[in-house]
This record gives sequence, C-alpha cells and structure tokens, in this order.
Amino acid sequence: MLERIAILGTGLLGTSVGLALRAAGFKGSIAGWNRSPGQAQFALQMGAIDSVAADAMAAARLSEVTLLAVPIYATLDFMEKLAAELGSEHLITDVGSTKRVIAEAAARLYNQPGRAAFLPGHPMAGKERGGAALADANLFRGAVWLFTDDSHAQRSQRVAERVKEWRGWVAAMGSKTLDLDPVRHDELVAWVSHLPQFTATALSALLEEEVGDAPELKDVGGRALREMTRLGASPYSMWRDIANTNTEAVERALLALEQRLAFLRENLRTPELRSEFEQANKFRRD
Amino acid sequence: MLERIAILGTGLLGTSVGLALRAAGFKGSIAGWNRSPGQAQFALQMGAIDSVAADAMAAARLSEVTLLAVPIYATLDFMEKLAAELGSEHLITDVGSTKRVIAEAAARLYNQPGRAAFLPGHPMAGKERGGAALADANLFRGAVWLFTDDSHAQRSQRVAERVKEWRGWVAAMGSKTLDLDPVRHDELVAWVSHLPQFTATALSALLEEEVGDAPELKDVGGRALREMTRLGASPYSMWRDIANTNTEAVERALLALEQRLAFLRENLRTPELRSEFEQANKFRRD
Repeated sequence: MLERIAILGTGLLGTSVGLALRAAGFKGSIAGWNRSPGQAQFALQMGAIDSVAADAMAAARLSEVTLLAVPIYATLDFMEKLAAELGSEHLITDVGSTKRVIAEAAARLYNQPGRAAFLPGHPMAGKERGGAALADANLFRGAVWLFTDDSHAQRSQRVAERVKEWRGWVAAMGSKTLDLDPVRHDELVAWVSHLPQFTATALSALLEEEVGDAPELKDVGGRALREMTRLGASPYSMWRDIANTNTEAVERALLALEQRLAFLRENLRTPELRSEFEQANKFRRD
Repeated sequence: MLERIAILGTGLLGTSVGLALRAAGFKGSIAGWNRSPGQAQFALQMGAIDSVAADAMAAARLSEVTLLAVPIYATLDFMEKLAAELGSEHLITDVGSTKRVIAEAAARLYNQPGRAAFLPGHPMAGKERGGAALADANLFRGAVWLFTDDSHAQRSQRVAERVKEWRGWVAAMGSKTLDLDPVRHDELVAWVSHLPQFTATALSALLEEEVGDAPELKDVGGRALREMTRLGASPYSMWRDIANTNTEAVERALLALEQRLAFLRENLRTPELRSEFEQANKFRRD
C-alpha cells in the first residue's frame, strides 16, 4: 500500500491532485515542493499537502511515488536529474500536456532493470488560469486521464503493483483512464485540445484589436463570445512548451482550420453552408 | 399604457419574451402566432401568451405593439405585408440578428406620416438550439438589447410614448439597451457574434471529420472542447439569413481570423507567440 507521495509543482494541477487524493481517502503522507515556495505554503494551508519540501530531490527520494506537475521542459529537466537519484523501487508519473518527448525520455532514462519506473500521464482537466489558489478536489471528476505507458517497460513486481495502485487513485479521483500510444496521443490532443486553445487565443487577440478599446461592445457578444474566448486567458508560459513539443501536429490542425474557415467564407451564400452546419451539428448530436 | 401585444413567431426568442414580460409584471394581453401551430400551443401552455392567433395579420391589427420574432427574411416579408395593414398608431419591433436590411425596409415602409412605426431591435441572447420548449423568462437578464432606430422617424406623440414604453419593458426583462447605427451594428455583430458562431461551426465540422467516429475521443477534450464547439449545434435555418444579409462584414471578419491563425501557426516556435497570448490575455483581463 502506497504511503508516501511527493508532488513536485504545487500549481493548479499539483495542488488539485493533493486535494483529490485526500478527498478520495488517501491516508499516507504528501510532500509538496514548488519553485515559488509561497505556492507550496498555500497548498499546505489548503490541506493538499502535509509538508513543504525545501529540496525537490530529497522529497522525491523519500517518497514511493513522485508526481511531476510542472510545465513540459521542467518535467524533462526533473526526469534527467531524478533518473540519477532514484532507485528501481520508485515510480514517477507526470501530468504533461504532450507525451512524445516525455515518453522518449522515459524510454531512455527509466523503465529498465535497475532504474526507476516512469508512467507518462495527462489528465484532461485544467482551468484557463493557474495557481494553487484555484485548485479544486473535483477538478478531475468526469475528466479523461490519459496514459501513454511503454509496453516494453521492465519493472519489478512491486513497482508494477504501484503503477496499478496509482491508476486506482486516478479512478478514485473521478477520472476515466484511457491508454494511448504517445505519438497518437499528441496527434489527438492537437485536434481536441491544442487547436481549440490556439483558436481561442487567435480569436481573442483579433477581437482585442477590433473592439478591445470599447468594453461595452464586448458585453454585446454575451455568453457565446465569453465561451469562445474564455481560453484566451490561458498563459503563454504553459502553452510555449506545448507549441514547442507538438509543433507539427498543431501546424496541421491550424492549417486545416484555416482552410475550413476559408471554405465557409467563400460559401456564405451557397448551399455548401448548409453542409457545413449539418456536419457541425453532427459533432454536437449527443 | 400598453395593453395588447402580439408576438409573431413563438420560437425560443418570442416565447422567452412572453415569459419575461409576464415575469416583469406585464398585465395586458399577449397574442401569439406561429407558422407551426404546435409551437404556439406550447407557448400558450407555458403561459408566455394567452391566446393563439390563427391569422398573424389579424393578431397584429388587434394589438398596439407587434413583436416580429422570426428569421430575417420572414421579418422582411411581414414588414411588407403589415405596412399595408396597420395604421399610424401601431408600433412594430423585431429581434432580427442583422439590422441594415431591416432598417432600410423600415425607412421605406414605416416611420412616415400616416404609416405605422417600426423600431429595429436585437436582443443579444439565445441558445444554440431553438424552439418554445427551451424558452426562459430569464433569457434576457444581463444581456444587451441593441436598437438601431432611425433619428428621422416621424411618429405621433402617442407612438413615441409606446417606443419609450417598449424600451422600458426591455429594461424590465433585465437587458441593458444600447443604440447603434444599423451599419455599425452589422459590423460590430460580425465581430462579436457572427465570427464566434462561424468559427465554432468550422471547428465542429472539422473535428467531426477528424474524431467524429470515435465518441470516446471527443470526451478527451473536456470542458474546453465542449465550450468551443457548443455553438456547432446552431441551426443552418437561422444562420443562412444572417450569412446572406451581412455577407461582406462576415467575410472580412473570417478572413482576418484566417490570417491570425496562419500567423500563429507560423510562429509556434518564435517569440511572436508570446505577443499573441498577451494580446489575447488583454481581451480577457476583466
């Protein structure tokens, strides 16, 4: 039975995992570390963690499972450093939004005899603004938590049990798990997550230019406009890493949307407009 | 004091206006007419209207204020027919989503000595699916209700009072009113309403093609994807008239978004991406 978890990165996701674990009945210890110690103190006050670690490496060494809940390049940095520090009984998992580069690092640095285990994970949950203050024990309820594990991973019986146990906690936090190949993962999230984000960013940036100087005109758009631009508040700091580690798939998705918008624009007065609406209606037929 | 209102078109908007008028304390009669009589019966059962009219012309003649709550081309048809039927004491208003063609018809057919008055209106509220069954007394609460009245309209004192009274009921339904020139109205809603809709339609149609055959993959997108595609359920029947009567402004807005998406795509790995996110963040700084 899992008794000691370390959460490296107590922002929105890391802190929410701590709260969700507690809500699901996890009784062991949860140590938290954050680059900005204030965020870790906040997570402690919220009850998401029960100790603040000054040293991320030491916190990981003292735990059985370490969750990396930091941006992708920071995750890759931790993976390099922790591979040298942790023994073969350790399990590391993460919440990074792209998985190809992480799965490649995992195959190179982990999941081999004598090395720690790494389980790449990606909860499809978040908010357009980050930070421990917005953390929520119910953030993962009803969400899909993706895993892109390596079928060639070599693990001891004991660590294999820990992988199962972590998957059990993910289910207990209210998420449905789904296993994907890491390349397929990145292609899929380019369509269903990254494309919607970059579309909202482009739309919001454009509208800021067109009507941003007249707040009363923003109100005119109502709920529809608010929803279509909510993700416009998402921070560059998080999306830079995603744009950098899933560039080709995001480029393909953006180009396809540009072409679709151009087709629609050229057919505003033709029967093709009906087909586009009917195709869109199908996507929302549920 | 206004005593008799006719609502021609008891779909989502017309029925919601009836419910909202009652909730705001309107004590007079509300007659309702719909092309499909079943929708009018439904509105009657919901208490949005207190009689179903078999003849739209007769219902308008017997009322002091007539609300046209039908698609734009149907509104223009009614404007032609009613101009010949109604005397100078009548006020007609509407809820059409584009205003230039309606304001032109109003200047030609109404607002002159001996003719009925026409006040072009546009509540910025709705749902992605229509019909009386989804009507809601609170639909207009917190929304902006646009008017594009003609400053050259010639009206009797009595009809001018009715215009004021109708604006009072709009405020009582919870909406903030805003007056715009009709051409400016159409340009503005192309940005804050039509562009978001056509973007959601294009995005939903594209995603239906990419992941539509795998429902479990749609779930992966979570709340962000649901919000960005909710408007994908909007019906062609309503948006055809908008695309036809605001074509140039919508074309400009769509082209601008295509260019913005292309710029973002070409800068996924450059510092320009930061500027785009910062510009988008500004739009959502509230």
